[in-house]
Amino acid sequence: MRDVFVIGTGMTPFGELWDRSLRDLYVEAALAAIEDAAVDRLDSMYVGCMTSGLFVGQEHIGALMADYLGRTPIPATRVESACASGGMAVRQAYLEVASGVSEVVLAGGVEKMNDGADVTSALATASDQEYEAYQGITFPGLYALIARAHMHRYGTTSEQLARVAVKNHKHGALNPKAQYPFEITIEQVLNSSQVADPLRLLDCSPVTDGAAAVILASAEVAGSLKGHPAVKIAASAQASDTLALHSRQDLTHLGAVQRAGELAYEQAGVSPENIDVAEVHDCFTIAELCAMEALGFAEPGKAAAMVEAGETTLGGRLPINTSGGLKAKGHPVGASGVAQVVELTTQLRGAAGKRQVEGTRIALAQNMGGTGASCTVHILEGAA
Amino acid sequence: MRDVFVIGTGMTPFGELWDRSLRDLYVEAALAAIEDAAVDRLDSMYVGCMTSGLFVGQEHIGALMADYLGRTPIPATRVESACASGGMAVRQAYLEVASGVSEVVLAGGVEKMNDGADVTSALATASDQEYEAYQGITFPGLYALIARAHMHRYGTTSEQLARVAVKNHKHGALNPKAQYPFEITIEQVLNSSQVADPLRLLDCSPVTDGAAAVILASAEVAGSLKGHPAVKIAASAQASDTLALHSRQDLTHLGAVQRAGELAYEQAGVSPENIDVAEVHDCFTIAELCAMEALGFAEPGKAAAMVEAGETTLGGRLPINTSGGLKAKGHPVGASGVAQVVELTTQLRGAAGKRQVEGTRIALAQNMGGTGASCTVHILEGAA
Repeated sequence: MRDVFVIGTGMTPFGELWDRSLRDLYVEAALAAIEDAAVDRLDSMYVGCMTSGLFVGQEHIGALMADYLGRTPIPATRVESACASGGMAVRQAYLEVASGVSEVVLAGGVEKMNDGADVTSALATASDQEYEAYQGITFPGLYALIARAHMHRYGTTSEQLARVAVKNHKHGALNPKAQYPFEITIEQVLNSSQVADPLRLLDCSPVTDGAAAVILASAEVAGSLKGHPAVKIAASAQASDTLALHSRQDLTHLGAVQRAGELAYEQAGVSPENIDVAEVHDCFTIAELCAMEALGFAEPGKAAAMVEAGETTLGGRLPINTSGGLKAKGHPVGASGVAQVVELTTQLRGAAGKRQVEGTRIALAQNMGGTGASCTVHILEGAA
Repeated sequence: MRDVFVIGTGMTPFGELWDRSLRDLYVEAALAAIEDAAVDRLDSMYVGCMTSGLFVGQEHIGALMADYLGRTPIPATRVESACASGGMAVRQAYLEVASGVSEVVLAGGVEKMNDGADVTSALATASDQEYEAYQGITFPGLYALIARAHMHRYGTTSEQLARVAVKNHKHGALNPKAQYPFEITIEQVLNSSQVADPLRLLDCSPVTDGAAAVILASAEVAGSLKGHPAVKIAASAQASDTLALHSRQDLTHLGAVQRAGELAYEQAGVSPENIDVAEVHDCFTIAELCAMEALGFAEPGKAAAMVEAGETTLGGRLPINTSGGLKAKGHPVGASGVAQVVELTTQLRGAAGKRQVEGTRIALAQNMGGTGASCTVHILEGAA
């Protein structure tokens, strides 16, 4: 296993991008990453995307993107794991460089959600079709069950959930690529339309078009480039859990997240306390709390207090979702996992501008699919 | 890079399996492969599937299959590359074992096509949605264009195309898992309904439900097992080409197939003449001819004569599609690439019964997506 480095990043704005197609988005992000890396060579590429088939009637998007990027005949592989598709793309690219098969690999994620498709139905295919989706439950409904269980077990309140959204919008207001770059208040969250009790509109991440891309390379290639400080992938881990909520012993516990986190900490030789900045999968406000607990950032039931105390806000002990997170930056489902790595690489380069976390050296990205049935965790390490 | 071996294979019957769901199929094939390998350990798994979203409303099938196989929390990743999804699953599993990240990895492919979905529309998402599918052309139509170009350039005839189907049905009649295990005649092919001139019904592979699985392992694990003669993956290669036919200089030339073939021959240190038996992607009869030419089994325009001479029939110089191929065995699109490796492993183990190719030692599997925009080639090597 060889060391692997992030040598380039790129990202489209996130939002309702009616003037850009699926392929436009991927190519825009990929070209930005290639330009950022200032590297000519590309040995292989991955495309993380959840459901371009249902959203825009296009599968086979590995080859499509290689074609439109002008990179045929390199291998081009699409990976799908619902909203963890982006993280999986990064992990497969990592494996390919780590193995020695390739020197320079592109990992991009993309989703074109605003194109007329029935988004709620398409997203429901990330849950168990036979036992969940077919019965009529939607993703807000599934996460509402998790939120109710968390409230019941730990006394978590709607106001505490709202604080997650408020924090992420505060961060997102500093990110020019965010879909909703403005601040919101607790009152606004609590007074927004109810989607699935106890989750309200402003507890939910939006429907987003966008793409993000990173270029991974071996130490040899990374060392030959002069553009940016080196960012090493210190760990790449992945785990699975039951797809349907009914199979879980405890709705508030994200088993795949815990497992992937443990594997990643072990590989990188660090503990949760060593993490300086993190991007976690806040598809709903409750998801950020459960992910924090599964990753060991807080004891079970204690994440909300940590958010309330401002520890995860910029300037706090462990800033979480400095990009604005899925909530404010937007959530083009197949791209989100890659966009997390883009944000953290920017932080580790010290190039995050107004949302820079000072002195950051170790960063963690956690991306999950469905209600946490699949999860990737990447730990990035900047120059000391 | 470490050596990688196939230590287990499994496969469902292929056909219209109205009593089995997507998850049933994958689990049945995977359990058969695990039992065949007689191995307890499974470090990771891949699921090759083209469009479970459009066929049965289910994405996120990596985690789903890990769940129903009782294997959570291992990493489970779905890969998609249209009809090359199965080959990609094998390749990603190969990379993971070769890299040293995992010792034992399951690669399965599955497709549930008979479940009420509009199959022709779903398959069209493997072509260029904006420039091909949206204009109304279907896959039989696209391959009909290729067939017409081949006829125009090389004088290939409908009767020659029919011989491919006749040969594959002759082989398929010996395969108890084939969807259509019976022989057909040239007259039957030529008199079958016209689908897209010059392709008739019996030039086309069918709509199929099914799954296939292989277990790949390191030399250490493979060496510790006693069940089967070792089958080594001597090469795993992949390439891409333009998605839309309009971008190609020559419709009869499959660039990604040629490229993947060249890479595979180089990795394995063999030439086309060294191949003893092959499974090639005969989604339409013309595809088998073009693939044979791109792989160097015949000069451009000469494959049809090779088929006519019986060289690719069982007993001939290079038997092709001894399983019956996609044409007679059936074509559950995400499973086909894995099923090819199942057939070749069976051949290399000398366990193919009535369709055994005697003295076979080097075998080649070629799997492609769309009209050849993505392709994997695997070369397997049996014990000397």
